[in-house]
Amino acid sequence: MKQAQRIVTVPTRGPGLYEFTDALSGFVREAGMETGLVTCFIRHTSASLLIQENAAPAARRDLERYFERLAPESAGYEHDDDGPDDMPAHLRTALTQTSLSIPIHDARLALGTWQGIYLFEHRRDAPEREIALHLVGE
Amino acid sequence: MKQAQRIVTVPTRGPGLYEFTDALSGFVREAGMETGLVTCFIRHTSASLLIQENAAPAARRDLERYFERLAPESAGYEHDDDGPDDMPAHLRTALTQTSLSIPIHDARLALGTWQGIYLFEHRRDAPEREIALHLVGE
Amino acid sequence: MKQAQRIVTVPTRGPGLYEFTDALSGFVREAGMETGLVTCFIRHTSASLLIQENAAPAARRDLERYFERLAPESAGYEHDDDGPDDMPAHLRTALTQTSLSIPIHDARLALGTWQGIYLFEHRRDAPEREIALHLVGE
Repeated sequence: MKQAQRIVTVPTRGPGLYEFTDALSGFVREAGMETGLVTCFIRHTSASLLIQENAAPAARRDLERYFERLAPESAGYEHDDDGPDDMPAHLRTALTQTSLSIPIHDARLALGTWQGIYLFEHRRDAPEREIALHLVGE
Repeated sequence: MKQAQRIVTVPTRGPGLYEFTDALSGFVREAGMETGLVTCFIRHTSASLLIQENAAPAARRDLERYFERLAPESAGYEHDDDGPDDMPAHLRTALTQTSLSIPIHDARLALGTWQGIYLFEHRRDAPEREIALHLVGE
Repeated sequence: MKQAQRIVTVPTRGPGLYEFTDALSGFVREAGMETGLVTCFIRHTSASLLIQENAAPAARRDLERYFERLAPESAGYEHDDDGPDDMPAHLRTALTQTSLSIPIHDARLALGTWQGIYLFEHRRDAPEREIALHLVGE
């Protein structure tokens, strides 16, 4: 049994879903493990992780619009020092994921056919986002 | 330290919560590990995972109704090629879990008394669902 | 590769966010591992886990109020035997996390600057809450 770690940086350009499945697959391939568990951990509280449909762009647009309505701007938040998109970003992060773990089988991510792994950016003008990856296996 | 993996298939008959705690316990028992971590990963984007109350069926019915209202059908989604229950299924999946990790202690899942592990089916007519299990421990 | 486990108990005094980052850091430090993965698992269905902003108390108050509105009391739940705050507690748990996994790098939690780890209590009069911790690494 051994471990591998990597920080992946994902540049974002405003709110929306940014796929990083290929970066994660590359990390697993380079680590050279056949069987294991990979964990993604996003180091932010105003962006999150999500596994979603990777084929239909319309489904991703519906998903983005849904979260805009579910945790809207201009809802009279007490915390508004960091701009109107900051508090909704924390709420949308709370409703989705900060960590995700995926088994590795036959040296590949055990994803279903339609699953893509996304960073979900909730802010309009965010710094580069960091995702810490951890792999344990052999 | 060693690992074990298994694919569990769960047949579903329409939307709702389907418990698979026993299948997970069986996997842990057969792997013969005393101490470890088990991870469940659902290989779909229109069904999800949830740990919930295992005693009161009324609580599960309330939970199912709540998600039907929170991410309703007929909300004017752009993505509607796959039927009216498809886009709400993706949204309900985003709001719940795709992966769950549970410590193993004294050869048992470290669940609380009232915790059951459920597949949350969001579609009316879904294929058999697959959950990839991974266990690391000794 | 080795493992460590611990149960952390968190006393709560009504609904809200209770930080336990220090207890988790202490567990990692005492286990003496440089590289690994720590998993937190809450053994309840009416309290949950959340990684959120650790600097602005107003952001946490907004977050608490948001979930009070999103899964309100007095919504005509079928399951009401355990008091009016019980069913909303299950719903708020379903919308947030029961397990969280965080990489360990250089003997420290790989958290971002603004991330704190919280127990999210959803009930007014709950027993002491238990979080099962598991660490694998070396």
